[in-house]
Amino acid sequence: MIRALAFDVFGTVVDWRSSVIRELGDFGRRNGVSADWPRFADDWRAGYVPAMDRVRRGELPWTRLDDLHRGRLVELLEGTGITVSDSEIDELNRAWHRLDPWPDAVAGLTRLKRRFVITTLSNGNVSLLTNMAKRAGLPWDCVLSAEIFGHYKPDREAYLGCAEILDVAPGELMLVAAHPSDLRGARRAGLATAFVHRPLEQGPDRAPARPADGEFDVMADDFHDLADRLGV
Amino acid sequence: MIRALAFDVFGTVVDWRSSVIRELGDFGRRNGVSADWPRFADDWRAGYVPAMDRVRRGELPWTRLDDLHRGRLVELLEGTGITVSDSEIDELNRAWHRLDPWPDAVAGLTRLKRRFVITTLSNGNVSLLTNMAKRAGLPWDCVLSAEIFGHYKPDREAYLGCAEILDVAPGELMLVAAHPSDLRGARRAGLATAFVHRPLEQGPDRAPARPADGEFDVMADDFHDLADRLGV
Repeated sequence: MIRALAFDVFGTVVDWRSSVIRELGDFGRRNGVSADWPRFADDWRAGYVPAMDRVRRGELPWTRLDDLHRGRLVELLEGTGITVSDSEIDELNRAWHRLDPWPDAVAGLTRLKRRFVITTLSNGNVSLLTNMAKRAGLPWDCVLSAEIFGHYKPDREAYLGCAEILDVAPGELMLVAAHPSDLRGARRAGLATAFVHRPLEQGPDRAPARPADGEFDVMADDFHDLADRLGV
Repeated sequence: MIRALAFDVFGTVVDWRSSVIRELGDFGRRNGVSADWPRFADDWRAGYVPAMDRVRRGELPWTRLDDLHRGRLVELLEGTGITVSDSEIDELNRAWHRLDPWPDAVAGLTRLKRRFVITTLSNGNVSLLTNMAKRAGLPWDCVLSAEIFGHYKPDREAYLGCAEILDVAPGELMLVAAHPSDLRGARRAGLATAFVHRPLEQGPDRAPARPADGEFDVMADDFHDLADRLGV
């Protein structure tokens, strides 16, 4: 029996790519600079996994995602020849706090919340997730993060820490994510898994493959479909 | 400038005493036993500070409040000569997840949430606070707890950990509480402080004294009054 749903956030709940491109455009107009913003957004996101891996390997002490994002941003601005103030960099870095939900997300979460405890389980830090939820109206029951467990997903400790702090068995907790690697990590830790297809996450021309039927416990097209399949 | 409000919960947001007495009455009828339930509730609560002190002194490893509550409950049931199953004890122990808010709490928090990030900062564990909020409709932006910081209030680490994880300076965070000892701990850590008067917390015959004017940054009669005083 599933008692709680833990949601991956970037790409699963919110459309990071369109939102970051929009924020980069605003930044460009404010500062009178321009660049290939869709490519810049993709390059920024591409720094995410290698930076977390440096933490995972112990090359960096625990570093919250805001600070990993900022390090990558400074590199990219330097590479593009854009020079702005530190406060402009901080403001742009908080683009990740201002991501828009997929169109089904708020209504779907509101439905799912009637039956289940719904929480974030994101590599984003708590303040990022809290600010995002407040702006976007995401109705979480609580806000959990890799930051609380001191381990980035897909480390086992993040999934098991989430189950423990919610006081449910791993098998009573379902991870909901658009990314097979995250779901595989959850499954290895004993969680139930729901894949949600987000074909536009990487932009219009790079739809990810759907995992094979049967690899995960539930396959859904969006959060309404997930609620239907979970019998809400 | 205050950016976030952290709320003590037991006594400040919810009326633990009436709610626990109600739960004890339900337990008694279900099991065909009776006792002086108001006194039982007071004795249960009286075990709270000594149990946390055992954790603070290192006599116990970190122990979540649910388990501290349960240890005290088992002692009290034994002392009263009541014998029930472990699952009945578990169910009764979850009384602390089913506390009712003070009449002004939900509407007042909803107002305050428009202007500030609002979080719990309670000695209750995350699952307790999450279940309570879901049942009572408490509109938290996030759910923070001593459990996350590994320190019970009034340890300094709990207040500073809350500011850090919200990414605000200690002086940008205001603790809201009905208990001077909690507020003094927050003030020592550099937080702003708001006292809210809850004259019925200990029952109708034991109204606590109001602190002296000027000891805390704000003195309020309830959460509406707090919102008024904070200019929301």
